[in-house]
Amino acid sequence: MPGHIIHGFSKLSRSEKLTWLRDQEKLSEAALAHLNGHLHPDPKLQGIYEEISENNVSNYYLPLGLAPNFLINGILRTVPMVTEESSVIAAASHAAKFWAMHGGFHAEVLGILKNGQIHFTWSGSERELHNAFAMIKEELLQSVESITRRMEERGGGVESLEIRAMGPALAGFYQLFVTFRTAEAMGANFINSVLETMAGKFSSLMKEKGPGGILEIIMSILSNYTPDCRVNCHVEGDTHIFDPLVPTMTGEEFARKFMNAVQVAIHDPYRAVTHNKGIFNGMDAVILATGNDFRAVEACGHAFASRNGTYSSLSNVELSNGQFRFSLETPLAVGTIGGTTTIHPLAGASLEILGHPTAEQLMEVVAATGLASNFSALRSLITTGIQRGHMKMHLGNILRQLKATPVESEMIRSHFRDRTVSYAEASSLLESIRNQNPKQ
Amino acid sequence: MPGHIIHGFSKLSRSEKLTWLRDQEKLSEAALAHLNGHLHPDPKLQGIYEEISENNVSNYYLPLGLAPNFLINGILRTVPMVTEESSVIAAASHAAKFWAMHGGFHAEVLGILKNGQIHFTWSGSERELHNAFAMIKEELLQSVESITRRMEERGGGVESLEIRAMGPALAGFYQLFVTFRTAEAMGANFINSVLETMAGKFSSLMKEKGPGGILEIIMSILSNYTPDCRVNCHVEGDTHIFDPLVPTMTGEEFARKFMNAVQVAIHDPYRAVTHNKGIFNGMDAVILATGNDFRAVEACGHAFASRNGTYSSLSNVELSNGQFRFSLETPLAVGTIGGTTTIHPLAGASLEILGHPTAEQLMEVVAATGLASNFSALRSLITTGIQRGHMKMHLGNILRQLKATPVESEMIRSHFRDRTVSYAEASSLLESIRNQNPKQ
Repeated sequence: MPGHIIHGFSKLSRSEKLTWLRDQEKLSEAALAHLNGHLHPDPKLQGIYEEISENNVSNYYLPLGLAPNFLINGILRTVPMVTEESSVIAAASHAAKFWAMHGGFHAEVLGILKNGQIHFTWSGSERELHNAFAMIKEELLQSVESITRRMEERGGGVESLEIRAMGPALAGFYQLFVTFRTAEAMGANFINSVLETMAGKFSSLMKEKGPGGILEIIMSILSNYTPDCRVNCHVEGDTHIFDPLVPTMTGEEFARKFMNAVQVAIHDPYRAVTHNKGIFNGMDAVILATGNDFRAVEACGHAFASRNGTYSSLSNVELSNGQFRFSLETPLAVGTIGGTTTIHPLAGASLEILGHPTAEQLMEVVAATGLASNFSALRSLITTGIQRGHMKMHLGNILRQLKATPVESEMIRSHFRDRTVSYAEASSLLESIRNQNPKQ
Repeated sequence: MPGHIIHGFSKLSRSEKLTWLRDQEKLSEAALAHLNGHLHPDPKLQGIYEEISENNVSNYYLPLGLAPNFLINGILRTVPMVTEESSVIAAASHAAKFWAMHGGFHAEVLGILKNGQIHFTWSGSERELHNAFAMIKEELLQSVESITRRMEERGGGVESLEIRAMGPALAGFYQLFVTFRTAEAMGANFINSVLETMAGKFSSLMKEKGPGGILEIIMSILSNYTPDCRVNCHVEGDTHIFDPLVPTMTGEEFARKFMNAVQVAIHDPYRAVTHNKGIFNGMDAVILATGNDFRAVEACGHAFASRNGTYSSLSNVELSNGQFRFSLETPLAVGTIGGTTTIHPLAGASLEILGHPTAEQLMEVVAATGLASNFSALRSLITTGIQRGHMKMHLGNILRQLKATPVESEMIRSHFRDRTVSYAEASSLLESIRNQNPKQ
């Protein structure tokens, strides 16, 4: 193979790692300068970032922006959002302000139960397994008390413990299915510690007191699928509130077309994926800003979107007698303490900006931001099209890519004032400007 | 409501936005200092970040680390990864090195077609619609030539154009389904520009030449569901290669238990979500590092995981005659030019570190990183458990949270050298250390 496997890479210092890259011609001077130029000047803060994950060589910047005017259950909040996608924050802000003037977002946490599984195989009969489990269940719960005590003080702990068979597709496979409350934490480390300890005890108790048979623990781990840790959020109003939105449509027409667009997302997976992606544009931006884990939220939400056998929209519209109601229901496991949320200096700032929400309030904020993003995307799609707003936001980036001068940029911006921006058009426009004004 | 809706927020300067927050007591001096302290000192670079998305007040740092030793289709690469989750990069690196010594990752791009949709309602008959479409199809394609010309020069363009009915659930709803090649770009803006232009032409042509009937365009937008833009990646070898991995297991036993764990993820959605989440831990870290859009990749991959009616594992294991084969198949729409990839200084550095891959090679790298993450997670889960490695990586963060001194940290680190770390145990250990050594 070209090149050689490197051993002990993780033990190299940051600059040794980068020197190794340069020696292989995988790092220009300019790129090296960028990596070095993105370190935090305060060594203590830089040290925090270097401990978050491994083999650290720089800090990747993502813009942190603010979406004000989120009225959620009567509380007005400014939502911190981290995203690299242009127009997401602008769109969420527009929707938030519109709905703040019409009653705001109504959010309700429908459950906060998380869960984990101890997967195992058992060579004996299912009936004997159930009997043995009934006998040792209390001991299993006691075995994790040293871990759960602190969580119980905060209102959390193990909620239930049951045994489940995997069914005919996987005969002999079972699981201990454990549900948890994790208070203000997302709880992944807590749940995994409980499960691993309980699995060890389960194995030894079955040997000691079980009916005879071979039990093999496959693995013990939390599930990121948390349909019982779920939030619903909706906005509602008379369709007349949409009258001023679009000059060419009545509010009633807007609402009907909006509902048609959501219906397409409910029935067509190709559209549903993009529709829900737009919801996650908003949700993930808050998840990132608060130091939560967007992979967990994404995996859970999309699996929930497929729960009825066909991948479908997470949001829904009801329209009757001139009343419009737009809602989003999604599972969300988030925390306001623990993990990166506690460690990351800007996650702390984000929680301050949000007004120090509880974990349940944060679920509501995340859902409201997702619903706001969805509302704005649909509003653009069914009226001017997504490109007008999005590409206007993106024009600065295009001008930068084209290396347009300030004068050229102003000419191009003015050309696009009432037109949809496209890279191709911006580029050929720039060319013609330059042909007309050749450099002296 | 408490507080007032703010108007014109986006027009405030950065410092005016923050002053407004402080006036509402939503920003402490310490948090303000953090927001200010994370700006880039070079105003030109800071300007880039401020144009990426809106209402920017700071840069959110995510650690950028390196996973070396990824041998993919015979090319040895170092993979840049951006993640806030501890142990993801270490785990990917371990798996990469192991497989580099056993033939590496074998990846194959199975297709690169992207797609978009023009959704509309039509009041006339389906047959007449089909006839009219056949008549105007060429004109529709011609109408977007000014947009597609540049893309065609790079090997892309519109691949096909067809009409689809939404079926009995949504009678009268149809779509123009358009497939695209987008060369080295992810292509979202290109696709949306083509669709919006074509939709306008479709509407006017149907009025002009159509059979009579009301056509209403609902919306025109790319689909993030790209099952025909897909990559497969696998590793394989004799099970004896696992013999040295775990002292208490033969390679054959390891492979069998590994397969059992994957089987559980195939048949149990609660496990599948977490299993796939682990795959995305690796994939998203590369997506972020290269300036691609992780919401698009997530939505598409998870919908693909549910395509057969039940949410299931994206990876699979085959084991026969002592031969082990572990594979991942997933749709992935990524680009190496355009959007944030071109603008973000560190996305540029990431592509350099990767050796300037094509978009198809980047698909292979992303898939290999996902498979590596999945391999390492399963390896830990079926042997020592996930917590030992993960919590060891996380111990530094815990010690920081507990405000342990260097001497205390060293004592606690030494205690956990051969034990699984838990926050509870670290905390009570620190308490007992402090009780034994009260401050003078």
